[in-house]
Amino acid sequence: MSSAAAPSRAAPRKLTGKKEEIDAFIDRFDTFLFDCDGVLWQGNHLLPKVVETLEMLRSKGKKLIFVTNNSTKSRAAYSSKFTTFGIPVSVDEIFGSAYSTAVCLARVLKIPKDKRVFVIGEAGIEEELSAEGIQHFGGTQPLWFPEDEVAEHAGPDPSVSAVVVGLDRHISYAKLALAFGYLQDPAVHFFATNVDSTFPTHGKLLPGAGSCSAPLTYMLGGRAPTAFGKPSPAMMESIERRYTLDKSCACMVGDRLNTDIKFGIDGGLAGTLAVLTGVSTEKEILKAGEAGEGPDVYLDCLGDMLG
Amino acid sequence: MSSAAAPSRAAPRKLTGKKEEIDAFIDRFDTFLFDCDGVLWQGNHLLPKVVETLEMLRSKGKKLIFVTNNSTKSRAAYSSKFTTFGIPVSVDEIFGSAYSTAVCLARVLKIPKDKRVFVIGEAGIEEELSAEGIQHFGGTQPLWFPEDEVAEHAGPDPSVSAVVVGLDRHISYAKLALAFGYLQDPAVHFFATNVDSTFPTHGKLLPGAGSCSAPLTYMLGGRAPTAFGKPSPAMMESIERRYTLDKSCACMVGDRLNTDIKFGIDGGLAGTLAVLTGVSTEKEILKAGEAGEGPDVYLDCLGDMLG
Repeated sequence: MSSAAAPSRAAPRKLTGKKEEIDAFIDRFDTFLFDCDGVLWQGNHLLPKVVETLEMLRSKGKKLIFVTNNSTKSRAAYSSKFTTFGIPVSVDEIFGSAYSTAVCLARVLKIPKDKRVFVIGEAGIEEELSAEGIQHFGGTQPLWFPEDEVAEHAGPDPSVSAVVVGLDRHISYAKLALAFGYLQDPAVHFFATNVDSTFPTHGKLLPGAGSCSAPLTYMLGGRAPTAFGKPSPAMMESIERRYTLDKSCACMVGDRLNTDIKFGIDGGLAGTLAVLTGVSTEKEILKAGEAGEGPDVYLDCLGDMLG
Repeated sequence: MSSAAAPSRAAPRKLTGKKEEIDAFIDRFDTFLFDCDGVLWQGNHLLPKVVETLEMLRSKGKKLIFVTNNSTKSRAAYSSKFTTFGIPVSVDEIFGSAYSTAVCLARVLKIPKDKRVFVIGEAGIEEELSAEGIQHFGGTQPLWFPEDEVAEHAGPDPSVSAVVVGLDRHISYAKLALAFGYLQDPAVHFFATNVDSTFPTHGKLLPGAGSCSAPLTYMLGGRAPTAFGKPSPAMMESIERRYTLDKSCACMVGDRLNTDIKFGIDGGLAGTLAVLTGVSTEKEILKAGEAGEGPDVYLDCLGDMLG
């Protein structure tokens, strides 16, 4: 709190209603990375003037990349969600944590094709792993044995090379027991699509993907998963590998300080923009600014970019 | 590791096969506190010579107290388990974490009778709370709304004064979401029967009660539950309040270093005895001894007390 510890970053500026400042901010960048839930929509409710704002940015020649930690949907399923909202977005513009995880496993870590990945998660992970040719089980598959036989089936399995955990709204004791059994072999990788503590939906906070891996970390005496979603540097590396991204001309737009804004700052992007339609509040944003962890600018909602 | 940090406690001595030393050790105590699973039995399998060992101790006038962190059974249900194994034990000699929790809530913390307790756990907790006249819901009750309406029902509820978490082999996303919603009111107590990371059964390690509260701790940004089971001092206080216990003549017998043995040492009992039929291995016991956290003595199995 002393002047010696003062952050070098400027305090977050609120730009809502300041058309000239907004336009000047937009002009600094050629690429905008967007978080989706809490920025473009809230659950199944599209936020005001989002379509017009994205059209405005496209009309100015800006490149748009949609980056989400939500691993329950594949890129293809996410594309359908955009279509439902009347937002024209191609699958190639979408970068989800399930996709990022599958690409890292297949192309960077080169998980052997004859090994299997055990999934605690939903269809998004399964679809992206399949698309990368990775064998997997668990996930949305019904349990293949009676529930009271968990102990018989729990234990290391040499055919399993990794456990991937994402948000699983059907998490169960059996899934956790099996994952723990596989992870008792320290050679088995422990991955998470993301470790968000909560999952905002319908104006409520429900358990997030990180809450699905937390029991395993606890059982493993503190061994945490390698996470691929925001704010992990692995996510930024994947994006850089996939697109021609000039970080000095890129801005991250998000609603959450400890994922989106941290991702933009730690990832070395030239700008960060927060909106107040999601998780982090104005008070939290200003407080984070004091610690040098706030966004450059913030708006009440994304539509305010129209000025 | 330096001599300056050398523990004052002596290294754990193995007494298996040393009849005179065993008898001298037994003679030092008038009360033996026993952990059950991993000491007397493993799941549904009684360990060798347990009946004879307990008879020998009773014949010498020793007082026996059976202390378990397993909250899935009430004391009455536990008593039936003893009977199944042919061990004569009265309900009054059994002290479980579900009972300890219910007694603390009702008699020490005096949870208001018109408030409700939300339970993540099994029948043991429900039965002990009911016996103490505490209103509760959740637990083994089926969900009272369709699963896809979790968000609608999640949130603070002024009728709820506490959340109690124990081992729940039917843990679900909805239960975690509801518990998190209630705990968003900081006035709502967060309790755990115990926080064992694992639950040994049928020779395997499955998720323990602590793994059921870990997601909530994660969602709450690190707020951990107050735990009533071993090694919590609350458990020792409850035992002292209930029995006439002279700690200078009492010995804790258990299979697990971080619950049973820690409970005996931290609780100020005069002695600790470990057996190798449960979770902790001989190597771990000797290593703990170097850190001053080992038992006084250990045996291959409880039956070795017969000499």
